[in-house]
Amino acid sequence: MLDKVVIVGVGLIGGSFALGLKRAGMVREVVGIGRHPEATARALELGIVDSVSTAYEDALRGADLVLLAAPVAQTGPILAALLPHLEEGTIVTDAGSTKCDVVSAARDALKDRVHQFVPGHPIAGSESNGPDAALAGLYEGKKVVLTALHENSQQDVERVAAAWRACGAIIHTLSPEDHDRVFAAVSHLPHLLAYALVDDVAAKPHADLLFQYAASGFRDFTRIAGSSPEMWRDISLANRAALLAELDAYLAQLTSMRAMLAAADGSALEAVYTNAQRARRAWIEAIEAGSARPQPQDNT
Amino acid sequence: MLDKVVIVGVGLIGGSFALGLKRAGMVREVVGIGRHPEATARALELGIVDSVSTAYEDALRGADLVLLAAPVAQTGPILAALLPHLEEGTIVTDAGSTKCDVVSAARDALKDRVHQFVPGHPIAGSESNGPDAALAGLYEGKKVVLTALHENSQQDVERVAAAWRACGAIIHTLSPEDHDRVFAAVSHLPHLLAYALVDDVAAKPHADLLFQYAASGFRDFTRIAGSSPEMWRDISLANRAALLAELDAYLAQLTSMRAMLAAADGSALEAVYTNAQRARRAWIEAIEAGSARPQPQDNT
Repeated sequence: MLDKVVIVGVGLIGGSFALGLKRAGMVREVVGIGRHPEATARALELGIVDSVSTAYEDALRGADLVLLAAPVAQTGPILAALLPHLEEGTIVTDAGSTKCDVVSAARDALKDRVHQFVPGHPIAGSESNGPDAALAGLYEGKKVVLTALHENSQQDVERVAAAWRACGAIIHTLSPEDHDRVFAAVSHLPHLLAYALVDDVAAKPHADLLFQYAASGFRDFTRIAGSSPEMWRDISLANRAALLAELDAYLAQLTSMRAMLAAADGSALEAVYTNAQRARRAWIEAIEAGSARPQPQDNT
Repeated sequence: MLDKVVIVGVGLIGGSFALGLKRAGMVREVVGIGRHPEATARALELGIVDSVSTAYEDALRGADLVLLAAPVAQTGPILAALLPHLEEGTIVTDAGSTKCDVVSAARDALKDRVHQFVPGHPIAGSESNGPDAALAGLYEGKKVVLTALHENSQQDVERVAAAWRACGAIIHTLSPEDHDRVFAAVSHLPHLLAYALVDDVAAKPHADLLFQYAASGFRDFTRIAGSSPEMWRDISLANRAALLAELDAYLAQLTSMRAMLAAADGSALEAVYTNAQRARRAWIEAIEAGSARPQPQDNT
């Protein structure tokens, strides 16, 4: 049970964490704080937070847990602002999609208090933003990756894990470096590719005609291009090295497929398509087999 | 009302056309013919077709309408095989995703009988294949593009249009060239990009780890990489020139975004992301506004 939780950034991610904790009866009081007064006011109206604060001094008094759920570039400034008011018993965690930069910003900002910061990343979301998109069940059966620091006490890591488990999530552990390499490939690159395609189509002189005939394949391929540009600008820059490496590998793949196409090499193209179809099918089957099993849960 | 319809290729596309016509009470008898005896047998079992034929001579006797629903590279061979048995009163249409190559194959195969071939492309589908995936409602509210030939009589084009309308589809008209340019951009390129990404990820030494953390964004982005490799090999080759042009434009776009990323130019990246998000949102709003309106239907 948590007496007081502070959510910095009450949008989809922060709001869903608050609602998940409330639904589980895991928290007595949730305080919201953020850059956008209309978002915090809306979160209060929706019952996502119990009160809204405009000063870390008030918000942090007696807090058990603070979740940072703002675009990752704000991690350093937020931690610097809350440090003077950070009590010894308060744990801070985050929901950022990149971890090396977050860890580095936390070390710079918190210095010898960095042991109070447990970095995390819930693998859940949607292309919708803001408190109205928040859902108590958003993290149900979803992974949360914690990239704990050697300075963290095992007990603090466990308290953060327990809060996420109360929201229905399954805890995984990776190093910040492994985390960032993995998500560059399976999340950050696809976002960049989807934005690139929509911008490319929209810039053509006959864009209206093209959009008129775009159908469900295009819609699903580009769904993630509906995501927050600011958030994804920050993620792209924060995970720049790993994302560049993945983008270069993908450009090499496309260049090789371009050569197959130019040479009308149908069997080479079909081999790539077949391999992709098979790999994707195996992945989907593994997901379905996994979700048919009861999920390991430990809501203590 | 059609007395006899022949479906060449009783998979998702051909099977759904048969079921749509049957549901509308638009057809007395549907005959299935195809390369895969297990697929035609299954279509018969499912009531998609009323009988199965193994010879065009039998199948085409007294047929009003023939739909080719096989991978596009088979258009020429199929038309050549059915030509000796094609009666004067029979109209042939197709459901191929490319049109210039189909028209050219039809001209070569049918010669002075090409006026009996009305090229078409239903903009509907799914990554599932085969007769089990067929649905009577697949074409409900979906577009069917007809790229009629100057040799076609208006009456024949109208008969094909009426059959698709009976399945709930909305008829659009484009030239084969415009059709192929449009679908290279909004369908063929995204398929190639999705196959490329999954193959790229699957080829990495830590592919298992990557797939473990791939989530709903990756799933939707790559949904179309679950499509038939043979069908998409044929489409890629058939629409090679337009697809190469779109791929080159996309490679130029990615190369420019790579430079922004390498230079850590956050505002340039954010401008691309913002433009894409805005264009996609406008497109989705236009779709939603369109589907809220009653669809023009004319099932005569």
